[in-house]
Order: sequence, then structure tokens, then C-alpha cells
Amino acid sequence: MGLKFEIKKTAGKTRLGELTTKHGVVHTPAFMPVGTCGTVKAMMPESVAATGAEILLGNTYHLMLRPGADLVEKMGGLHQFMNWHKPILTDSGGFQVMSLSGLRKIKEEGVTFRSHVDGKTFFLSPEESIKIQHKLDSNITMCMDECTPYPSKYEDCARSMRMSMRWAKRSKDAFVDRDGYGIFGIQQGNIFRDLREESAECLKKIGFDGYAIGGLAIGEGQEKMFEVLDYAPEMLPADKPRYLMGVGRPDDIVGAVLRGVDMFDCVMPTRSGRTAQAFTKYGPINIRNARHREDPRPLEEGCDCPLCSKYSRAYIHHLQKCNEVLGIMLLTWHNVRYYERLMQGLRHAIENDTLEQYAAAFYADQARGDIEEL
Amino acid sequence: MGLKFEIKKTAGKTRLGELTTKHGVVHTPAFMPVGTCGTVKAMMPESVAATGAEILLGNTYHLMLRPGADLVEKMGGLHQFMNWHKPILTDSGGFQVMSLSGLRKIKEEGVTFRSHVDGKTFFLSPEESIKIQHKLDSNITMCMDECTPYPSKYEDCARSMRMSMRWAKRSKDAFVDRDGYGIFGIQQGNIFRDLREESAECLKKIGFDGYAIGGLAIGEGQEKMFEVLDYAPEMLPADKPRYLMGVGRPDDIVGAVLRGVDMFDCVMPTRSGRTAQAFTKYGPINIRNARHREDPRPLEEGCDCPLCSKYSRAYIHHLQKCNEVLGIMLLTWHNVRYYERLMQGLRHAIENDTLEQYAAAFYADQARGDIEEL
Repeated sequence: MGLKFEIKKTAGKTRLGELTTKHGVVHTPAFMPVGTCGTVKAMMPESVAATGAEILLGNTYHLMLRPGADLVEKMGGLHQFMNWHKPILTDSGGFQVMSLSGLRKIKEEGVTFRSHVDGKTFFLSPEESIKIQHKLDSNITMCMDECTPYPSKYEDCARSMRMSMRWAKRSKDAFVDRDGYGIFGIQQGNIFRDLREESAECLKKIGFDGYAIGGLAIGEGQEKMFEVLDYAPEMLPADKPRYLMGVGRPDDIVGAVLRGVDMFDCVMPTRSGRTAQAFTKYGPINIRNARHREDPRPLEEGCDCPLCSKYSRAYIHHLQKCNEVLGIMLLTWHNVRYYERLMQGLRHAIENDTLEQYAAAFYADQARGDIEEL
Repeated sequence: MGLKFEIKKTAGKTRLGELTTKHGVVHTPAFMPVGTCGTVKAMMPESVAATGAEILLGNTYHLMLRPGADLVEKMGGLHQFMNWHKPILTDSGGFQVMSLSGLRKIKEEGVTFRSHVDGKTFFLSPEESIKIQHKLDSNITMCMDECTPYPSKYEDCARSMRMSMRWAKRSKDAFVDRDGYGIFGIQQGNIFRDLREESAECLKKIGFDGYAIGGLAIGEGQEKMFEVLDYAPEMLPADKPRYLMGVGRPDDIVGAVLRGVDMFDCVMPTRSGRTAQAFTKYGPINIRNARHREDPRPLEEGCDCPLCSKYSRAYIHHLQKCNEVLGIMLLTWHNVRYYERLMQGLRHAIENDTLEQYAAAFYADQARGDIEEL
């Protein structure tokens, strides 16, 4: 029953792992591209798989509104519906109810909110969230929790975290055990170490297939986030996957992997693909910049994505200037491939006992900046 | 020198042909997807090729404005720039100057106009158009012409057609002969038979690698267009390809093939892909329609495109409702594949002496309407 997680090797706090689900294996450290509405924006699922991604994140909030969990279930579940036959993790919907919907009312029982799509009123409770995620056929269900903003007062964080822990228990109770499926608890506590500790203890007592670190990357900055990550992952069981929600930029991920985190998700690579930002070995660049207009070179030397292997910077610049869909398609593909190559590089480095050198080279390269203008 | 065109078989007025260019062979009757700005909107060039398309149309007007012909030339030509290594035909830019640009002034020498992109003033003459198409490395260059609107007075059509014929001569004179490249003349004359005849005689005297029928599909309706096509193609040399510009809907194409036309281009399949319209065996449908919301069936039974083989109508409906890029990508792919399957079907029917039956079945199927609602 549940999910199998094996740690193959460690390097300091860092772990090389294999998470086995009904829909396949996820090699960790892993990055999950975000497929908000049942599609990774501007990519065919075959292309997502070709980047090396082994698991996607789906958003319960969006999917419950459109097309609705019952419809997805009727269509054979989210894998079948969206033609992605590898593992899927879904969030609880709670976070996006807070950030996207209108007229929210949070009570112990759950949240009443208005859809940002059509203004209809919905109610989401831990039990309802788990039921929806079940209907979606999500391999990894996330507990419903509340996430405090940054900065927040200690008392507010404590009160909120304790409600999240009661919700975690209700989520776990509502979850239906199935082989190859699992449920993750979410640690809260904002930047307060003792609250993080209390939260971790609560979650461990309930018992989960994996443990997420929630409530970070919400405006506290990388330094503060790393301060929390210096202790938070180790509060969670060593034999289960640890997932840092909503993180992040490449250097956030490398830093978190060094601190013992196994899983990540972020809209950064896909969203950037729609705003002309490209991630490269030598740091991010904006391809709309005039310096790329006549540049025949690939976006990133050595990258094996279609954009870098078949097109010039000049062409991508042109597509972006003309707002062509292909510009979004190619840049999204490159960015997701960049992230997956980063994860492959990290895994390879752990395996070969070169993680320290890999990380040092990564930071040096990122700091170098883009190749010289022609 | 020039292009090779071989007619393999005929069926009534219809011809099965092979047009050989430097970048490969085009089997006719052929449909050319439109790649306005150096991309078939929302498709990877590999996907365009996978639909069976053997030649694309590029728009000189758009490309001269962005990124500019000199830049395309510097990047190795349009094939290289856009990663499409099969044949390319470019229009002269004249038609789109008339329809898209601001403050046009047409004189015998050429057209002065303002770019719709940035308001800059440009001058386009037959010589300049041919030079630009050369820089783009277009396999099939089109003469610059003027296209009269429908309806127009006889005298205006005559005057305009005669200027177009003088422009045709200047275009031909400016064209640089190269092996595997050619130039097509364009017949004008609106709906007036004697003007069409006069135009055809002019063009034949100049001598071209192929002949286009211009000035149709501009609002005259299918009946009037077919009246002209009942005689116009045969006015043009039988041993050269005939190209009906900017046409059209599937039934326009079938009707024109039966009347002896070999080549077509139209934005219909790609534009429709962005407005939720899908072409199917049983006629066009709008996938945003509520009847598709819970329909698990493929868009078109028997179609081998990714949309039809891997997704439900419900999913495409969902993507369109959420304005997801993937919805545009998949629907465009399907529509282009629909057009290319239609052309393959026509070619196969000519080869097998079943053209009459094929056309009859096509019209009957189109009239039938979409499959029953579930």
C-alpha cells in the first residue's frame, strides 16, 4: 500500500532517491513542472516527458472549477484526460483559494469562496479536497492546509499552523489507501523554528507517505528561506520524501537540495517561457533584448532542447517580437528542459560523489552572465 | 534551370503532378499551410511536415517588416531561419500592402506604404519584391500584382490588370534564374472572361514556371468563383502548375481541383485552430459548443493526428474554454492534417480513377453534419 521511497545514496544532507507510484518511478531530487489546468502551458505532454520530467503537479483549485472533478473522473482521471501517463501530484487547492478566489471565509470546518472564473460559491474542506484529489486520480495527494503570509505575527502563525495540523489529521482520515498512491503532510510554522518543530511532530504522529515544507517562498527572500531550510528538512522523517512547495529559481533549488530537500515544483520555467525569459547555464536572459536580434548562435550552447539545437537566438527574438505562439512553445520547452537537466546534473553528481564541485561550478556559471555580445 | 513539373495522370480537367524544387518535391494537387511571419502559427515545423505538407507559403509583406529580408538572408535564408527544409513559396507582398498597411499610394512604379507594425514608410516595386523574395531564398517567387476588389467596374479591372501585366514583365526581368527555383505569373481580370483571357495571353508571352489565378476569393462567393474557374485554368499552359491564391474552404478546394487547379494556400486551417473551429469529415464544428463538454469521443473518428488519436472532445473543449495554448496547438495541427489528408485523398483518387466517387462522397459527408450528440 502507499508509495515506496528508497534512498539510494546520500551526500551530506542530500539524498538520491526513487519514489515509486502506480504510474511509474520518480528519481529524486526531482522537479515537477506545473500543469495548472490539466496542461503544462504551451507543451505537448510528449514534449514534457522528453525533457526528463517524471512527475507533474496539477492544481486542484483550477481543476475543481474547470472542468470539475466529476468530469475528470468520468473521463478516466487526470492522466487519461490530459494524456500524461506518468505520476501526478496535486495540491489541495487551499493555497490558491487564498491567492486567486474572491470573498473567502475561513473557518475551522473549511473555506467558502467565490470562483475567479464565474463568481459561483464553493466550499472546500480537508475532506472535500481529498475527495477531489481522489477523483482526479492523483498519485500524490496533498493535505489541505493554511499558509500564513510573510511577515506574520508569531501568535497568528501558531494558531494557523495548529489548525493546519488538525486539517492534516482530517485529510489523512479522508484519504483512501490505494497501492501506488499516497498522501503528503505539510509542515507549517512560517519562519519560527519551534512552530516548525511542533508541526513536524504533529505530522509524524499522524504518519504520511511524504512530507512537504509549506509556507516558504512567499516573500521572505532566499536568505530567510535558507535559514529555515537549514533545520526544517531534518525535522521530517529521513526515510520519506521531502517536498519544498512552490520553489523556485535554479539557485533556490540547488541550495535546497544541499539542505536535504527531494522534490520541487514551480511555475517559473513555464511562466518565464511566456515572458521571453530564458534560463541558461550562465544565468537568465531576456530574449526580447535587442542584442539578440542578429545573433545566429543557439540560446544555450550544449543544451539539447529543440530551441537550442535547431534555432538561432535571432529567430527566437523574432518570434517573441511578433508574439508568435511558437516562441512561447520553444522557450517553455527550453526552460523546462533547463530545469530537468539541472535535476539530472544534481542526481548524477550525488551518484558520482561530485556534488560539492557540481554546486560550486553551478554558482560560478550563474554568476558569469550571458555570452559576449557579437 | 527553373522548376520541373511533371503531370503523372489526368482525370477530366484534374491533374496529378510532381513539382520539383531545390528543397524537394511537391505532389499536386497540393495545399500550402501559411507561415506568415516565418512560422506556421502554433506548430513546430516538424509537426507541419508530419501532417504531409510538402510546401509552405511565406508572406513577403510581414517578413520584410519583421525581421527584414536582409536579416533572413544573413541567417541563411528562410528555410534555415525557421527550420523548414522543404519548399517555400512566397507571395509578392502586394496583396497585404493593400489589406494591412496604412496610407498606401499606388503608382506605375510601385507602392509606397506605412508599416502596420511601426508606421515606418516603405516602397515596394516589382523589382524590390523579387529582390526580397530572392533574399528570403524562396523556391517559388510570385510576381507583384494588383488585385481589384469585388465588385469592381470593368474599366477599373482592365486598367489594373494591364498594370499587373506590366509588373509581371518587370518581375520576370528582375528574377534571377537558379536551378530548383522559379517564378509564377498571376492572372488577373476579376470576373471578366475577356480580361482573364487577355491576362493569360500576356503571361504566356512572358513565360513563367507556373501560373496563379489571382483576384478570386475576395468576396464574390463560391458560385461566382467557380464560374470563373470553369474557364480560367484552361487559359493557362497545361504543362505548368496552376495555383489558386488564398483558397479556401475544403469544398472550394475540391471544386477547384475538379476544375484543373493544382495548388492552394489559405489561412483557414491555422486561423480556425485559434478560434475553436475544427474541420471534420462531416463538416466544420465549433469545439467550444456545450455539447462537447462531456464527450469522450475523438474529434474525428479515423483521423490520425495527435488530437484525434490521444484526446477526447471534452478535453479540447476544456482547453479552449480555459484559453490554453495547447488547445490552439492541437486544433491547428488537426486542421492542417485535415487539409493535407484531403489533398492526399484527392491525389489517391486521381491515381485510382475514383475521383468522381471521391468527390461525391466528400460532398455527401460534408452535408451530413457532426456525429449525434451523446
